[in-house]
Amino acid sequence: SGLVLVKNPHLDLMEEDVLYHLDLGTKTHDLPAMFGDIKFVCVGGSPKRMRAFAQFMRRELGLAAAGEDVADICAGSDRYAMYRAGPVLSISHGMGIPSISIMLHELIKLLHHAKCRDVTIIRIGTSGGLGIEAGSVVITDTAVDSSFQPRFEQVVLGDVVVRSTELDKDLAEELLACSRDIPDFPTLIGHTMCTYDFYEGQGRLDGALCSFSSEKKLEYLRRAYDAGVRNIEMESTAFAALCGLCGLKGECCRFHLL
Amino acid sequence: SGLVLVKNPHLDLMEEDVLYHLDLGTKTHDLPAMFGDIKFVCVGGSPKRMRAFAQFMRRELGLAAAGEDVADICAGSDRYAMYRAGPVLSISHGMGIPSISIMLHELIKLLHHAKCRDVTIIRIGTSGGLGIEAGSVVITDTAVDSSFQPRFEQVVLGDVVVRSTELDKDLAEELLACSRDIPDFPTLIGHTMCTYDFYEGQGRLDGALCSFSSEKKLEYLRRAYDAGVRNIEMESTAFAALCGLCGLKGECCRFHLL
Repeated sequence: SGLVLVKNPHLDLMEEDVLYHLDLGTKTHDLPAMFGDIKFVCVGGSPKRMRAFAQFMRRELGLAAAGEDVADICAGSDRYAMYRAGPVLSISHGMGIPSISIMLHELIKLLHHAKCRDVTIIRIGTSGGLGIEAGSVVITDTAVDSSFQPRFEQVVLGDVVVRSTELDKDLAEELLACSRDIPDFPTLIGHTMCTYDFYEGQGRLDGALCSFSSEKKLEYLRRAYDAGVRNIEMESTAFAALCGLCGLKGECCRFHLL
Repeated sequence: SGLVLVKNPHLDLMEEDVLYHLDLGTKTHDLPAMFGDIKFVCVGGSPKRMRAFAQFMRRELGLAAAGEDVADICAGSDRYAMYRAGPVLSISHGMGIPSISIMLHELIKLLHHAKCRDVTIIRIGTSGGLGIEAGSVVITDTAVDSSFQPRFEQVVLGDVVVRSTELDKDLAEELLACSRDIPDFPTLIGHTMCTYDFYEGQGRLDGALCSFSSEKKLEYLRRAYDAGVRNIEMESTAFAALCGLCGLKGECCRFHLL
């Protein structure tokens, strides 16, 4: 049917669903009227970038009147920012798995309540590249954890539940095909490694703590490259697992800056 | 000496230290002049609340001139917000361990570069209470993970490093003594449980996924209470571990709203 699957039997029993961190709710907002025609959701860490992306999309879609600005739909909350450009939603998710996970839970319920159909969700932004040219874009086929395994370990009431992190292969190929029209950005499909830490977790030597040597860092990053990892970031495994479980066609597409 | 300990031998070899997510750096800013006299750092998830807290502190300290506002020291970055009220810094950290961990790495290096001495850091804000009266404040003696263990597991280049999560007992007692002057808020010392997820991880029935029953939730929360847990949030183990390793006197002090 193309609808978003919310795998929670308790939701049907609730009189009201408050999407607290988005400052939206089923009683306070007419979600089908506000969001029913959404077909694409683009998510990224930074609120300013997601605002700029919505402005860009409005220009691309011919929707921007002169001087008109985009309004933050979640202005009542300072946890996330949400903008709209025609059928495209642009939402920030902050940094790290817990932060994107809260946003995705509430976004998925929003799309469900709004009765959206055939929604594609794409995570955009920057990441650290691994053995690739600066300025490259990596389209993720599979998100992997820090042991290079295609899994997301979710702790549910103290028990570990393991979830799959495969992303939509057709969508990855479609995005790669699009990239051929934009010669400035070398684009490739590869694995994306997701960590819980930006400094020690990713082998950066400039954190407040550094409990490893440069040699160990190089050896680890070499093993990651050999396992197919082409970029490193902090949200992709949770993103892939939640999209997969809720029937959302999802993809990560990240720009390697330096 | 009261100085902050940065346990990273690589830092001394760096010509410049860019605190990227704070939009500060050792070459672009005179950090000792800007921050050398800081004695207290208060951190919390929401940027708006940390701004309101800085305004409150300025009034309390008699530093607020009429109509004067506080300026965001990290205005060039939309990852975190930082305000100052005399010797008190007020900084937001977003939601979840990865987000607070990035901020703390850069904050600890900031205090180190600024040669701050005898700094106390307190995490403030709200949390979910467990078996306590609404409106209570929980001062954390020990942060525990979702198995109720006093540990923070940090993945360093694929290997798990286990770190202690004890907080400063004297500071906890000092804060409890302060609370006796404020009769409106019942205050107690207890364990704080830290999870990686707001919905399934904490037993909320209203996420997009719910892979457990109400019975299992109650049984888990009862076990948590019996283990000494009095509130649940998403940052305390990383906070306690990083403060402990860097010689920062740290404490968590959270308000249980509902």
